[in-house]
Amino acid sequence: MLHCAAMGQTAGIVIIGDEILSGKFADENAVFLIKELRALGVALRRVAIIPDDIDDIAATVKSFSDRFDHVFTSGGVGPTHDDLTMEGVARGFGVKVVIHEQLAAGIRAFFGPELGEKNLRLAEVPEGAQLVGRDDELKWPVTKINNVYVLPGVPSLFRRKFAAIKSMFQDTPWATARVYCNGDEGSLAPHMNAVVAAHPTVNVGSYPRFDEQDYRVLITLESKDPAAVTAAREDLVARVGDLVVRVDEAS
Amino acid sequence: MLHCAAMGQTAGIVIIGDEILSGKFADENAVFLIKELRALGVALRRVAIIPDDIDDIAATVKSFSDRFDHVFTSGGVGPTHDDLTMEGVARGFGVKVVIHEQLAAGIRAFFGPELGEKNLRLAEVPEGAQLVGRDDELKWPVTKINNVYVLPGVPSLFRRKFAAIKSMFQDTPWATARVYCNGDEGSLAPHMNAVVAAHPTVNVGSYPRFDEQDYRVLITLESKDPAAVTAAREDLVARVGDLVVRVDEAS
Repeated sequence: MLHCAAMGQTAGIVIIGDEILSGKFADENAVFLIKELRALGVALRRVAIIPDDIDDIAATVKSFSDRFDHVFTSGGVGPTHDDLTMEGVARGFGVKVVIHEQLAAGIRAFFGPELGEKNLRLAEVPEGAQLVGRDDELKWPVTKINNVYVLPGVPSLFRRKFAAIKSMFQDTPWATARVYCNGDEGSLAPHMNAVVAAHPTVNVGSYPRFDEQDYRVLITLESKDPAAVTAAREDLVARVGDLVVRVDEAS
Repeated sequence: MLHCAAMGQTAGIVIIGDEILSGKFADENAVFLIKELRALGVALRRVAIIPDDIDDIAATVKSFSDRFDHVFTSGGVGPTHDDLTMEGVARGFGVKVVIHEQLAAGIRAFFGPELGEKNLRLAEVPEGAQLVGRDDELKWPVTKINNVYVLPGVPSLFRRKFAAIKSMFQDTPWATARVYCNGDEGSLAPHMNAVVAAHPTVNVGSYPRFDEQDYRVLITLESKDPAAVTAAREDLVARVGDLVVRVDEAS
């Protein structure tokens, strides 16, 4: 449902990693970030799970950057041969990978005499990248280039880093009503179509369920305008009549 | 890691639904299909989660169809205003949406005198689509157009429909070895680079973990050639030496 009015800020998520596509690890970071963005009032418009491939990272990140207000990447930022995100993002924006001196100083301090040849790869960033957010515990912040936030794939680190930047993304929250119905979607569809037509600022979603005890279709009504949700909910309930099982409304 | 030899069959997954992007429902179908494709030996190359938008569905499905051997879509196939997958797939391939007579007959038989105006939307398919798979319980099979399999979003139906077609996708399974190590990724990286160079048919993945009791980095070795995995595993273990905690090898 994309025919609603002002959506506010938009976002995309790029999950980078063969380990997710091959099922070695289940994605946790998109699952987490979907909920965070929703709570912030940011409209997530697309998630891509892609391989550890520089050209694919470059093309995907550039495309997302052009289309959405904010882009979050997950994974591929360690020191090994399969960590290609910084190279990919740099190629997407047509810049070089360079050593960021502030990161390099932090890494030297962290590893001390144990510093290995490859550890300084963690200081590599696309040229022009900024460091944003606060993460006193980790000692280094989040790499941002243009509207792209480069986050690590390890879920505990991903969550900690996102917590350090999430205050940058607050938007108006959504108001939502849920109308649980009996009947099948086909017979409910004309009523929903009427509500869609009469309430153009409200997103109407229809979700059949076959394993629930007391209802067969969940209809959701959403908008950033709570009064519009209330009006659409009242309209829908009046039209659907006896097939309504119950209604939840929350902002 | 994409520098391996013959990958066999490839696949992409397109999850269609605002309800996933907005967090109203957690995706279950990509999670399920990732594991199924892995067990079948099919190389999943990309997952996209996209909105209920005809043009986005069209562009995404066409792009996936061009790039991968098999494409699986989830969602957007019901009778309501937000069910746009058939229109999107048809637009992607430049064909019309038509009523499939075999599906229409099944729907008329299923609903009988209760048939609603919108129920026949379930018989709409992109022109030229075939019906494949066996699903005696549901009475109607899976819609396939070119290399795209159109599956429903409701998880229980998605799994049942995939079960009806999965025998079409068997490929050589992967052999995998897991080497659990101490040390940090930076100091292990040169050893991995040597293994990558010496065993070009083996995919080498490196995954740091910070919450595990007995290891800090999981290194995975994968190939469709079990002997190549064994050789790479022996090489890696010899190079890494005392930092190896344990090794799992399974085909």
